[in-house]
Formats: sequence, C-alpha cells, structure tokens
Amino acid sequence: MNDLHQMAHDARVAAWTLAASDITVRNAALLAMADELEARKAEIFAANKADLAKAEQDNLAAPLLGRLKFAEEKLAAVTAGLRALADLPDPIGQTTLSRELTEGLKLYRITCPIGVIGVIFESRPDALVQIASLALKSGNAVLLKGGREAMQTNRALCEALRAAADSSGLPADFAQLLESREDVAAMLKEDTLIDLIIPRGSNEFVRYIMDNSRIPVLGHADGVCHVYVDKAADLNMAVNIAVDSKTQNVAVCNAMETLLVHRGIAADYLPMLLPALQAKNVKLLGDDTVQSIIPCLPATEEDWHAEYLDFTLSIKVVNSLDDAIDHVNRYGSHHTDSIVTADESAAQAFMTRVDSAGVYHNVSTRFADGFVYGFGAEVGIATGKIHARGPMGLEGLTTYKYKLLGSGQLMAEMKNGTRRYTHVLLNEDCPL
Amino acid sequence: MNDLHQMAHDARVAAWTLAASDITVRNAALLAMADELEARKAEIFAANKADLAKAEQDNLAAPLLGRLKFAEEKLAAVTAGLRALADLPDPIGQTTLSRELTEGLKLYRITCPIGVIGVIFESRPDALVQIASLALKSGNAVLLKGGREAMQTNRALCEALRAAADSSGLPADFAQLLESREDVAAMLKEDTLIDLIIPRGSNEFVRYIMDNSRIPVLGHADGVCHVYVDKAADLNMAVNIAVDSKTQNVAVCNAMETLLVHRGIAADYLPMLLPALQAKNVKLLGDDTVQSIIPCLPATEEDWHAEYLDFTLSIKVVNSLDDAIDHVNRYGSHHTDSIVTADESAAQAFMTRVDSAGVYHNVSTRFADGFVYGFGAEVGIATGKIHARGPMGLEGLTTYKYKLLGSGQLMAEMKNGTRRYTHVLLNEDCPL
Repeated sequence: MNDLHQMAHDARVAAWTLAASDITVRNAALLAMADELEARKAEIFAANKADLAKAEQDNLAAPLLGRLKFAEEKLAAVTAGLRALADLPDPIGQTTLSRELTEGLKLYRITCPIGVIGVIFESRPDALVQIASLALKSGNAVLLKGGREAMQTNRALCEALRAAADSSGLPADFAQLLESREDVAAMLKEDTLIDLIIPRGSNEFVRYIMDNSRIPVLGHADGVCHVYVDKAADLNMAVNIAVDSKTQNVAVCNAMETLLVHRGIAADYLPMLLPALQAKNVKLLGDDTVQSIIPCLPATEEDWHAEYLDFTLSIKVVNSLDDAIDHVNRYGSHHTDSIVTADESAAQAFMTRVDSAGVYHNVSTRFADGFVYGFGAEVGIATGKIHARGPMGLEGLTTYKYKLLGSGQLMAEMKNGTRRYTHVLLNEDCPL
Repeated sequence: MNDLHQMAHDARVAAWTLAASDITVRNAALLAMADELEARKAEIFAANKADLAKAEQDNLAAPLLGRLKFAEEKLAAVTAGLRALADLPDPIGQTTLSRELTEGLKLYRITCPIGVIGVIFESRPDALVQIASLALKSGNAVLLKGGREAMQTNRALCEALRAAADSSGLPADFAQLLESREDVAAMLKEDTLIDLIIPRGSNEFVRYIMDNSRIPVLGHADGVCHVYVDKAADLNMAVNIAVDSKTQNVAVCNAMETLLVHRGIAADYLPMLLPALQAKNVKLLGDDTVQSIIPCLPATEEDWHAEYLDFTLSIKVVNSLDDAIDHVNRYGSHHTDSIVTADESAAQAFMTRVDSAGVYHNVSTRFADGFVYGFGAEVGIATGKIHARGPMGLEGLTTYKYKLLGSGQLMAEMKNGTRRYTHVLLNEDCPL
C-alpha cells in the first residue's frame, strides 16, 4: 500500500508550482508527453500485453478486453489528443469579471486551478492520459486510480507522462498512481490536502465515495437516458433516433435505456420501430399497452430504473407530454434525454422542465460527449448539478479567485461616507 | 418535528414550477414581498419583541441581541434589498455557450436553477429574507433553518414571503421553515430531493453537515484572514489597512485575525502600529520577535489557527514573502488575505500563490462581501473551491444544462463519415 498522505502532500506541492506556471511551459509539457509516449511505445505495448494476457486468463469479457487493449491505434489517438490539447487556450488566468468598486479599487475574478484532484476511473488506459493531460493543462495535480486489469499499462503510461513533465521543468508529482482499494480508502481521508474527488462508475460506487469522504465529490455515474416520441413527432426520424440512441454503441452512458411513446401515435410508431430494432437483435420490454401493439416481454418497475448497457430496451406508452417529463425526472439519472417532435412548444416545455444535464430536441442521445461538444476531451460526464454538469472538460477543472487591487482603501471610509461605491463594470484583464 | 420528507417533496414540486416561471412573475413576487413585509410590520415587530424578550431572559450577549433585533431600520433595509433585487437581470435562462456541432445541430449551454437548496444560517432574521429572495429570483426552492433565538421573527417573515409568492402566482412552498436540530438531521437524509446544502457557521459545524449527508455541501465557514505587510510596504498605508481590517467590525468573517510582518521593516512598522491598535483596545499576541519590539503576550500555535471575532490580534514576523505565503496557505481558511506592498512583483506572487477566495493588494480585508462586490446581496461567503467561491450571489445559486437542437442527426452518420463536425462558435441565444 502506498503512503497516501505523503502522495497527497507531494501533489499539493506540485499543484502550487503548476498554479504559478506559464501556459507555454504547460503546453510544451503536453507536446513532450506525446513524444515520450511514442518513444516508449515498445515498453508500453509490452506492459499492455502482460495486462491482456492476465485478463484473458481471468476470462474477462471480450468488450472489456477491447477497452483494455492499448496498441498503435490508441497510441495515435492519445498523442493526437495531447497535441490538440496543447493548441487550446489557457483555461486559467482568465478574467471573467472586472468591476471598479470605488475610486481606485478594482475587482477581478480570475480562473485558477482547483488544486489536487483524485480521479477514479475504469479499465481504459487511454483515460489515464486524457485525465492527466487535462489536469496538467488546467494547472492541477491528480491522484489517479485506474482499473486493476490495466495496472501494468497504467504504470508505463504514468511514468512516461511524469518523465515528460519533469523534462519540461514541471513537477513529475503532478500525476501519481494509486494501485489498490486500500489506496483509495486512504485517499478519501486526506480532506485537508485534496480538493476534489471525481469517481467514474456506478451509482453505488459514487455513493460509497460520498459516504466515505469529506472531500467534495463530482460523481460521474449511471446514464439512464430517455428518448420521448411525442404525438407530433416525424415518425421516420423517431425510428432513426431511437435506433441510433439504443444501438450505435450500447455500452456507453449516453445510450438510450428507456423509450417513451405518446399514446396518440403508439399504434403507428411501434410497428414501424419493431423491425429496425429486431434487425439489431434488441431485446424489448414493454408496459401493457406496448405488449398489446408489438411482441415484447413485460417491463417491471425495476426496468424503468435500469441502465442495461446492452441490447435491451424498455418501452412505455405515456398519456401526455407531462407524463413523459414526470417519468424522466422520476426514473432518469439526469444525464441526457431527447424529445422527438415537430411541435416547438412541446420541445421547449420538455427542455425547460426535464432536469437533466442534456436536454435534446430531434437528435440522438449519443451526442452527449466532451469531444462532440467541442471541449477537446472530457474528464467524464458529471451527473450532479454542482460545479460542473454534463461533459466535463478543462473548464470543469478550474475554479476562480477574486483579486482586489487597491491603493489603501478602508471600509471605515465607505461607512463614514468619505468614499462611495461606484460599481462600474470594466471589461478589462487583471494587470497582476 | 416537521415531516422533512414531505417538506422536501413540496419544495421539489415548487422548484419545478419556479424553473419554468417567467422573470416578470419572479420580479413581481419580489416586489410583493417588500409590500407584504411592510403591510405585516406590526405583526413582525411583535414577534421580534417576543424573541428579544426571551433572548434577554436567556442572557444573550449584547452584540447577539443587536443582530437579533428586527425593527424599522432593518425592515427598510430588507425591503430596499428586495426592490433592488427585482431590478437585477434574470440569472437563469442565459445562454453562456453556443456552438454548431455539425450542419443543423446547435448546442447551447443555458443557466438554470439548482433546484432545492437547504440553508442553515445564524440568528439574524434579515438573513432569512435575503436568502429566500435570492433563491426565488434564481428559480430555486429553499428549506431554511435560522437561529433558534429568532424563531418567532423567522416564522412571521417566512409567512409574509410565502403569502407574497402565492399572491403572485408562484408556489408558497418555495420557502419553508425548519425549526429544530431534528429537522436539520432529517433534511440531511433527503439526498434524492435536495440538491445542495449551504451551512453558514463554524468549521466544526460545516464538517458535521458534511459528515452526515450525501447532499453536496457548500460550506460558509471560518474566516481566518491575514494582512501581510511586505518589506516594500508604504508603512502608513499598512497601519491604516491593519487597523481597518482588524477593528472596523471585529465580529465578521472578513476581519483580520493574524498580521504577518516582513522582518526587514518590523522594527519600524510595529511601533507605528502599536498606538493605533491600543487606541482601539486591541489585545496583542506575538511571536518572539514581535515581543522583542512591542509589548504583547506570547502567541501559541493555536493562535495561528484562531478566528477570534474579537478585539484580539496575533502578529508574526516572517523572513520573506515565501514564508508569508506559506503561513497563509497553512494556517488560513482560504477566505481573504491581503498584501500591503509597493512592489508589484511581490503582489503578483502573493496573489497567484495564496490559495484563497480573495487575494487583495493594498486594501482592507473588510471588502470581501457580496454587496461590496456589486452582486446585490449574498447567500454567504463560500470557503470551499467547488461551484462557488467567496461572496456567493445569484450566480452561485444557478447551474446549467445543455440544450441540443437538431433535425434528426445520428451518431452513426458521424461515425460513417456522412456528416462531419464543424464546431463553429455561434454567439447566439437559444431559441427554445
């Protein structure tokens, strides 16, 4: 087991250096990381082969083996990602508010790094590079806990990233690797040194983290996403969106799990949808009305909560737009939900009242992604509402501080009327 | 004891209505609140007299009695605040990002209410009106727990606000009053209905809340604020800033608790400062060097952590700017810290490296306040870094959602190359 207190302390010291570092240095480090990963690729691929061999011995399922594999294609993707990240503007040091408070006294709100962030993620080793590089770009230090199946690969990747940071004049300890559940439990205790925990996983896992730490938690949990086919839907479009949302990739959090259909068009729509889903071998579960229209198994109360991550779909017929909204808010996970309709007022009501990070009109739920949104990459998709919501890129890894530049102003002067508040918006960058 | 599950449920329902409400209705409700408070003032003042009589019986200290008192002057202040709040722009429904993702597919990031917020605050009854009105303006429902000394006043105020909301066509349950510690404990369990807890109080109190809830917590805790007098300080300015920061109002979280003085100017500065602090009867505690220059009692390790909220000041001589920064980051509460110096590079280093919500140059720490910053009012001053930091006004009570407006776009089309990402920034408001 690692000494997590020492690791968190080292991360804190590294974070202070990063917070004061120049963007040219951080960008150079990102380019050096891409070069270093390419230079060490034999070593990294060998480590990954060892992980894969072990995983095969342990009878890991084929899709998981695919996620674990790290070879030429994934290396090319992560190095391209690192070089693209170096081109993005600096997320820290940006002035987001400037105001004169009284004569000669100027307030600036400036973006800055959060500090030390603990991230717990699944078996994909490319996630390690994405998370660590987003952290470095935004001036943060990270403690990383990846899937145990990827341990050898993660070690090799993390060492390459640390070496690249060091060779660029930044602290290698900006990224450190945790290796066990005991490490995670110890990390959760370091609330004076760690500013934020980002757990990616199931609702149960995120709850475990919240129950065991005083550190703020941004959960990246289940995606129980809905498509609602309104009575005013273009039914052909609704077939295509349902098929894409369900089957384009079933193993991801932005895949649809429940389809809601307005009663007024159910008898027309469901028979159109059936062959398209049958062609993809989707298992169908429906309520009584759905069962009376197309062949399917009965859906139970649990199905409305279920994140299948598989070729399975629950279908419910609703009486109204209001019922659809109520269902989504009650059973959904506040991730991403889409309405298909030609009625703009119905779309507006759905998008205003559905309490989810993503509310879509006439588009597949599969678009909920940081790269797709143009954020460069993502740390994950936040399912809470506090700080960051939905696909979380560089901006989600920043906070802000207020800088107040004066020339001896005193509160006593404001209270006795010697000075008065001017409160003039300035629209200028902070000079310090 | 109240039925907190029912109250939280009612708040959730109210929050859905508020989230979809028009700003003209919310502003009308704010004006109606001011009118209603004035119409009910006899009743409110009578309730406050009962609270005051009880508090005097219980031998409450004079400053606390002053905070508890709610008469003409405070009524005028809160009604003026309500009317000013009605004039501020709508914090929700604002488009903060707009981007075309692919042809015909537009992404908008829109500010929206958080939902249901629990706020626990101290004995000042005017805080109830400020918090409830900021919540309503930003479309949130609140569960409010004030100080027990103010119970009668809080009931009268809350009833007036609820009646005004109701008469304006908004749900009265946007504001509900908790009345006991048991109510608070029960509220902390309602993590499926409540989105955020804002506790105002001591560090210990905030930790208790964090330890007993899965609901995200934005703590508004201790203010251990510093003034650092650099070797390049204008010493007269540094005397005035130290006196203002310490004595202008000792009972508030933005008052200075520890003064740091550079060794190079300590022998000149401290004898200048002494008479000014003696004139205000400030009790002085110092390290060995300070004791060798001016008369004072010895400061202990605990003093560097202490929030006195009184006419007491701990003073330390530091060897360098780095030592000052290290002291502030180690012992401070990340609230507000000020450097006095004519050296801009020293100011820049201090402001970049001190990890606090407010980092000030040549100005009193007493300026850390939502009204002073031009936010209209504040819910409190957040001492954490996640979501909101420092004085928290309307913006801190909002989150955002992504609205994606399409015309049938599918992920399969992006993957097979039928469509490509355009990622063009649009700078336009969301039409839905």
